[in-house]
Amino acid sequence: MNNDTWLNRIDWAADGLVPAIAQDAASGRVLMVAWMNREALKRTVQSGEAVYWSRSRKKLWHKGEESGHTQKVKEIRLDCDGDVVLLQVEQGGGIACHTGRASCFFSKLENGSWVETDAVLKNPDEIYKK
Amino acid sequence: MNNDTWLNRIDWAADGLVPAIAQDAASGRVLMVAWMNREALKRTVQSGEAVYWSRSRKKLWHKGEESGHTQKVKEIRLDCDGDVVLLQVEQGGGIACHTGRASCFFSKLENGSWVETDAVLKNPDEIYKK
Repeated sequence: MNNDTWLNRIDWAADGLVPAIAQDAASGRVLMVAWMNREALKRTVQSGEAVYWSRSRKKLWHKGEESGHTQKVKEIRLDCDGDVVLLQVEQGGGIACHTGRASCFFSKLENGSWVETDAVLKNPDEIYKK
Repeated sequence: MNNDTWLNRIDWAADGLVPAIAQDAASGRVLMVAWMNREALKRTVQSGEAVYWSRSRKKLWHKGEESGHTQKVKEIRLDCDGDVVLLQVEQGGGIACHTGRASCFFSKLENGSWVETDAVLKNPDEIYKK
């Protein structure tokens, strides 16, 4: 692609960010939501792997850089008012969540309580070794 | 449910809102993202239909109140850091988007351009009659 016109279609918030939903391209499961700035989205497209903006660390975050659980991006969509991005991804290791679960959405509301429904597939101590 | 303790597990933003993703319970398609405050989420649980907070109109918004395209909520999940809600819904009329499309995510990035991939199922003039 020759220019960045497509980036201007996005309604970046005042802080320069847009939320990005990562959905498992195979299962359809929503894996996580993170944030992107222009640079993160541009790098995601260029590299074919999800790059987010870490609000806590205030820097670009190539998902999986520590854990190895990278996300191969198969498709990128934008919603009608341009303020949410949706990625279809192949989730490396089948683990998106830092808790070692497949998806970050492992708490389900049941009769007024949040119940953890998903198994920890890998101990976070083994994922993050430093 | 007897109390609202479950609402305190949510990491409400400074403006009192949390983003809510509506996903089609049958197809797995991500339909839209909107916002909820405590009252909206409480009413969603109580009524079994999605109630959001309209940031533009600054009021509670029972999705479908005008269009008839209500969302029957089958499941509510929360992500690991408690700042995004995920709803599994049965989408009334099969149309979630105000443009008359099934999903708000109808723009797909292809070779540096956003391409509209989804058909308009119903003319918005027929959906919103006033």
